[in-house]
Amino acid sequence: MAQGKRLTLGQIGEFGLIQRVERIFGRPNRPGLVQGIGDDAAVVKIGHNKALLYTTDILIEDVHFSLKYEGFLDIGWKALAVNISDIASMGATPTWGVISVGVPVSIPVDNVDKLAQGVAKLARKYRIGIIGGDTVKSPDRLVVNIALLGEAPVQDILYRHGASPGDALFVTNRVGEAAAGLAVLKDRWQLAVNGWPKIKKQIVKKYLRPEPRVKESVLIVKNKLASSMIDISDGLHISIKLLCARSKVGARVYLDKIPLNKQLSPPKADQPLAETINYQHALQLALSGGEDYELLFTVPQNKIRKALALFPHGWIGEITKDKICKVLDQNGREVITRNTGYEHFKTK
Amino acid sequence: MAQGKRLTLGQIGEFGLIQRVERIFGRPNRPGLVQGIGDDAAVVKIGHNKALLYTTDILIEDVHFSLKYEGFLDIGWKALAVNISDIASMGATPTWGVISVGVPVSIPVDNVDKLAQGVAKLARKYRIGIIGGDTVKSPDRLVVNIALLGEAPVQDILYRHGASPGDALFVTNRVGEAAAGLAVLKDRWQLAVNGWPKIKKQIVKKYLRPEPRVKESVLIVKNKLASSMIDISDGLHISIKLLCARSKVGARVYLDKIPLNKQLSPPKADQPLAETINYQHALQLALSGGEDYELLFTVPQNKIRKALALFPHGWIGEITKDKICKVLDQNGREVITRNTGYEHFKTK
Repeated sequence: MAQGKRLTLGQIGEFGLIQRVERIFGRPNRPGLVQGIGDDAAVVKIGHNKALLYTTDILIEDVHFSLKYEGFLDIGWKALAVNISDIASMGATPTWGVISVGVPVSIPVDNVDKLAQGVAKLARKYRIGIIGGDTVKSPDRLVVNIALLGEAPVQDILYRHGASPGDALFVTNRVGEAAAGLAVLKDRWQLAVNGWPKIKKQIVKKYLRPEPRVKESVLIVKNKLASSMIDISDGLHISIKLLCARSKVGARVYLDKIPLNKQLSPPKADQPLAETINYQHALQLALSGGEDYELLFTVPQNKIRKALALFPHGWIGEITKDKICKVLDQNGREVITRNTGYEHFKTK
Repeated sequence: MAQGKRLTLGQIGEFGLIQRVERIFGRPNRPGLVQGIGDDAAVVKIGHNKALLYTTDILIEDVHFSLKYEGFLDIGWKALAVNISDIASMGATPTWGVISVGVPVSIPVDNVDKLAQGVAKLARKYRIGIIGGDTVKSPDRLVVNIALLGEAPVQDILYRHGASPGDALFVTNRVGEAAAGLAVLKDRWQLAVNGWPKIKKQIVKKYLRPEPRVKESVLIVKNKLASSMIDISDGLHISIKLLCARSKVGARVYLDKIPLNKQLSPPKADQPLAETINYQHALQLALSGGEDYELLFTVPQNKIRKALALFPHGWIGEITKDKICKVLDQNGREVITRNTGYEHFKTK
């Protein structure tokens, strides 16, 4: 095939690549698989009623983080947090992890210690054992991969599939703050937030030290609230689309119901923030900023009252029969967002 | 602390770093752990008599492989092979894997397909399911991480610890060929092997498509041959030292017993190979070349006869009470090797 005609990653994007790879690996010739590629974590049955959850995430310097505005503790913390979120989004308990680090030789040992301390701090919080790893040299960029296991009774596991028309759509908490935090770190909003040290600290922390929603996941499972679930780390809008695609349904999302940090969102002229962070911008961050580790879940009608009691600001829309995902403004008009979320490789 | 005084990775090396990280992670607050950091794979008890094995390995372009002389199929194959070897060296069966790939956008999609096909080919051979992953963009270098699970009855698992004085030391097969294959690929031996296309092909394949010793591992476990085991991917000499350190014993290894490829090793003047590949060189590759995925195991005296029947060329030495690992030549003189094996970061 001529070089010029070869398909590029920019043309097919991350999701196109995942589909190809899924086909190449095929169905394994080994019993016990409940869920393979295509959800936040894989699921394997390991006992009468017990399942093993299995996920992996890689962070590469200058793609997922920058040493310019992230510390080694932050990087270690986040490397584990993203994996915990994948396990929590399936309604399971994280258990055991292994870590690979590729480190440029120029990085002093105490910084590698800090990275490990960031992982260890979060691991202790959720009683996760980091029990193995691989430490290698990297030519110039720091690379961290963590693979994480989880466990759950088979019937408690929540998938991206499972949502039905009429179910309500919920998020566990406010969205958009992490993306706002990243914007602050990148100095884009420095002036605007100078007068707001507390908010600044809060949203920057949301980006640097995301708190995976393990407690919320336990609450959702314990109360049997959800018919399907996904984490929204790639962005709220894309996550709704992924959940709907796997559930073979559509959704109507109400823009004014999306829970935002009110201190960031209202376009009030008397607040210094309003100059750069207005309602539209906050919504854009909420819909497609990514880096939020909230959970998105669907709630059957007979559970909505209970869900509202536990997540009073969580209701953002409903699942529909048609397979279209619409975001509607206060006037019922469909909102067109420029980017639905972050997708690796995609050039659009 | 002054910048100049900070400890560097070159000073402590990979093994020093592993010790620091092991201390930082500490003992996990979760029941079931049988073996944490410090062996080829971690071990967790998951049932009455059932254990889960867990390992991870990362390959980074220009550190572990080069696109100059390795194809994408080879890289995918090896990324899984190194992990399978870690599970096999514990006497366990590999089961489920997850893969992370960081890919420069310049790499055409069909090459990423080939990488996945390399993984899939080896996975099918050992009935391993690749059931999840993460595909991300990498600024300039290809990165592949695989985490692999395995399973085994608890009492069948072999560790680096467990060797006793008087045990025999065995390897599953010839050593040094993979390192010779790499030398050929790097053009160092091009002239020498031009007349030997078959040998060339054979040793290059040993490097590019290492065959993890799953069958041999099964044989060793089934016949209860071993008191301890390790794979020798970092080099034979360093692996003997690691096994001895964990078992708190020493070893005497007999140089003339180390099984080499005879076509590479004998210094015969009438063979074109002899000019560059002599016996000393072959031994150097065997002791410290690395990239061999053979298994090194110790055999209690009452099992040596059986082990010799199954691995007729496997006996290379014996375990001693003193904690010193010696390699002895035909005259009983200790051989001093320049490098004992490959260690990341180490500058010596």
